Amino acid sequence: MAKKNEEFVTHITSRDEDFSRWYTDVIMQTDLVDYSDVKGCMVIKPYGYAIWELIQKELDARFKATGHKNAYFPLLIPESLLKKEEEHVEGFAPEVAWVTMGGNEVLAERLAIRPTSETIICSMYSKWVQSYRDLPLLLNQWCNVVRWEKSTRPFLRTSEFLWQEGHTVHATEEDAQNETMKMLGVYEEFAYNVLAIPVVTGQKSEKEKFAGAERTYTMEALMQDGKALQMGTSHNLGQHFAKVYDIKFLDKDGQLKYAYQTSWGVSTRMIGGIIMVHGDERGLMLPPKIAPIQVMVLPIAQHKEGVIEKAQELCDILIAKGLRVELDDRDTVSAGFKFNECELKGIPVRIEIGPRDIENGVCIVVRRDTLEKQTIELTNIGEEIDKILAEVHNGILKKATEMRDSKTFLAKDYSEFKDAIENKKGFVKAMWCGETECELQIKEETGATTRCMPFEQENLGNVCVHCGKPAKKMVYYAKAY
Amino acid sequence: MAKKNEEFVTHITSRDEDFSRWYTDVIMQTDLVDYSDVKGCMVIKPYGYAIWELIQKELDARFKATGHKNAYFPLLIPESLLKKEEEHVEGFAPEVAWVTMGGNEVLAERLAIRPTSETIICSMYSKWVQSYRDLPLLLNQWCNVVRWEKSTRPFLRTSEFLWQEGHTVHATEEDAQNETMKMLGVYEEFAYNVLAIPVVTGQKSEKEKFAGAERTYTMEALMQDGKALQMGTSHNLGQHFAKVYDIKFLDKDGQLKYAYQTSWGVSTRMIGGIIMVHGDERGLMLPPKIAPIQVMVLPIAQHKEGVIEKAQELCDILIAKGLRVELDDRDTVSAGFKFNECELKGIPVRIEIGPRDIENGVCIVVRRDTLEKQTIELTNIGEEIDKILAEVHNGILKKATEMRDSKTFLAKDYSEFKDAIENKKGFVKAMWCGETECELQIKEETGATTRCMPFEQENLGNVCVHCGKPAKKMVYYAKAY
Repeated sequence: MAKKNEEFVTHITSRDEDFSRWYTDVIMQTDLVDYSDVKGCMVIKPYGYAIWELIQKELDARFKATGHKNAYFPLLIPESLLKKEEEHVEGFAPEVAWVTMGGNEVLAERLAIRPTSETIICSMYSKWVQSYRDLPLLLNQWCNVVRWEKSTRPFLRTSEFLWQEGHTVHATEEDAQNETMKMLGVYEEFAYNVLAIPVVTGQKSEKEKFAGAERTYTMEALMQDGKALQMGTSHNLGQHFAKVYDIKFLDKDGQLKYAYQTSWGVSTRMIGGIIMVHGDERGLMLPPKIAPIQVMVLPIAQHKEGVIEKAQELCDILIAKGLRVELDDRDTVSAGFKFNECELKGIPVRIEIGPRDIENGVCIVVRRDTLEKQTIELTNIGEEIDKILAEVHNGILKKATEMRDSKTFLAKDYSEFKDAIENKKGFVKAMWCGETECELQIKEETGATTRCMPFEQENLGNVCVHCGKPAKKMVYYAKAY
Repeated sequence: MAKKNEEFVTHITSRDEDFSRWYTDVIMQTDLVDYSDVKGCMVIKPYGYAIWELIQKELDARFKATGHKNAYFPLLIPESLLKKEEEHVEGFAPEVAWVTMGGNEVLAERLAIRPTSETIICSMYSKWVQSYRDLPLLLNQWCNVVRWEKSTRPFLRTSEFLWQEGHTVHATEEDAQNETMKMLGVYEEFAYNVLAIPVVTGQKSEKEKFAGAERTYTMEALMQDGKALQMGTSHNLGQHFAKVYDIKFLDKDGQLKYAYQTSWGVSTRMIGGIIMVHGDERGLMLPPKIAPIQVMVLPIAQHKEGVIEKAQELCDILIAKGLRVELDDRDTVSAGFKFNECELKGIPVRIEIGPRDIENGVCIVVRRDTLEKQTIELTNIGEEIDKILAEVHNGILKKATEMRDSKTFLAKDYSEFKDAIENKKGFVKAMWCGETECELQIKEETGATTRCMPFEQENLGNVCVHCGKPAKKMVYYAKAY
């Protein structure tokens, strides 16, 4: 009984024509964000912020279920504190916004607006951690951070963004490594089961790792234009910060030892990923679990007696099921306009219900991903919609996985590599010697960076795709946001 | 069957001896906050942050139920934008933290860290509001703000704090006034029903109103030391900001008109109020609705067979009821230590369960507020605990109301006034001529400020308590935090 809805009007640039303009058109026309008077800072409008709230809710439940608690640390970090860990400050200093005045007074010491909070949090942990009984210490904070970026794009790279940063302390190297991997696993499960985004997970190279980390792990997603987006990272900090900030504990054996630490974070950047993985020519396509409106109910011929009442009743049933539902009963725009708006805004399911449907005890359900129309009986509508939303999730995950796989290439030599990066566009799997020098040259020559050394290694040959020296790892390369 | 628990040890300064030290002892020993390396900035520890999360959840539901949506606006505000509204910048300039450098570059224009967001939000509203169809525009944001304070105290006055700020736009003066009063009403209902804190509501004087507002309304609570705490404010901004930031709309009648606005906010400061209204010699006393742990279950003689299992089962039953419950099965500290800790941390109800109780199918329930012990049958424990938590809420609200009323005084002349402020300590109701000059002199002479002109006016005489000129309003005075 599936039938396509043919009606469609929009003012969105085609993805093929100009993916970057398509992105801007989508985020502006769907009211996700707006540009502010402040260089590089975005305003997150209600529809965009509602997505972030749902992301927070899903992730926060996962963090708490794995034993983490939330706390809040200061926005401002004294320069001397930030500078203690050398690698860390080198990595972040170029993008720090500095507070130099309070009221009319020049401050004795400059204060950094946190670009990330390892330093301020470690200074507290140094007080809080005394004994092995205090460990593990598992905290997270939801907050804003500022990184003074030269070139910015809403969600993807902004001078201020919202994120969560987990910061944990452990007694042993093994515990820290387990935590690092566990939280990467939480992110990965979340990417698949909530965002419907397939990711590649693995370890970052020395060059790409977090400034001050022992090892950085990442999950990388592929956008429809073939560029990669780093969606979340989890760092094993080893004892780097513990030694500099003096985080020591008295162990069971009576010895005073430096602790081991991790940190891990995801940000509003993920919303950019959702848009660029799932969106299409009609606009957004939101994964049902983070869609602010999961179901839009549209009364057809709503001036007719009983239509709006029945549509409202339908809404109430679905809301009672725990779904996020709205009724669009505006009489100032046409039904066609409403259909288009639902599609533009990426609402996973819309329901049309008119006089004839009511007579027949049915409604018309349209999926945003396939635009398939189904006639569904009203008697069991709650469960049917639950099922359809799950199908939408699975459908877009499958489509995104196919997209990613079709844009993942193997390169056995450097000419294949350049062709894949420059012409085919996507992830390129290739062997690497492990030298930063090679990474830098590849970046210089092709614009591609190492995204990660995936956990699932494949042997594509014995030599580095670039320098021909013996290969150590198979790496995912791509141009990236 | 009620019996008091006699065992009690603590290291908290007595409230009568030094209320300020009592406050510091309580917040530090209960792990609500810690001092950071950053002047005037606090770290909110997990137990304190969990209270804030529960406050957020309760308030956010109320904001959404009244039609508001959340959004997020930039942390940084260009100086030129902040300076547009004259009164506003005069009020806030002395306490602004200024960003003057980004990375290694001096900024062309200084950026203020938001002390409040009217200016940046109005600059966006000026773009977003075009037609009467765009109104009312009802937004809220949860965020951090910075006010560079000279002298600070955790929760009560800190250089950075967390809050929510509602910002709304309306077509008419009447709509703006209704919104202003509605949100004050939401705060008031929340104070009584969630925080169990009785408040006095009314209008602020010209001197005490928000910089840039037409009228400010407030809810004021009285602390146990007789000082007032402003717990939340709601401002009718009139057209002040609309005219400066050019927020105009095309009305139904075809006329272009300036809009009317409101803003309203509460902050982490409320946690300070909870502590100082409900706390006692044993420590915190948390209102059940925002207590991170509502019920602590303590197995007695836990080494005996089946005790921990039964205690865990009890926890599970209560958790399934939707309660926030923890089991304290540490075997490294005594039962007495655990009792004290429950009391110190203000956990509304603790349950003791030992071998004999299990045999008898009962448990012992101890209320934190009265320290009453009750023997409760296990068969219906979920509903019983619900009932007891409601009784705790009512009990502490009643106690707080009696405390406030016993510290509220009438002053018919200035010697009564001074005696009430200086010796009795509390709210002093007195008549006022309405002149700022008189307010300033009273503050200079006694340290008391006008807290509000309450909605419930009483006629205490015809002349101002200070200058003897004809009185216009009955006012609540107090020393304040």
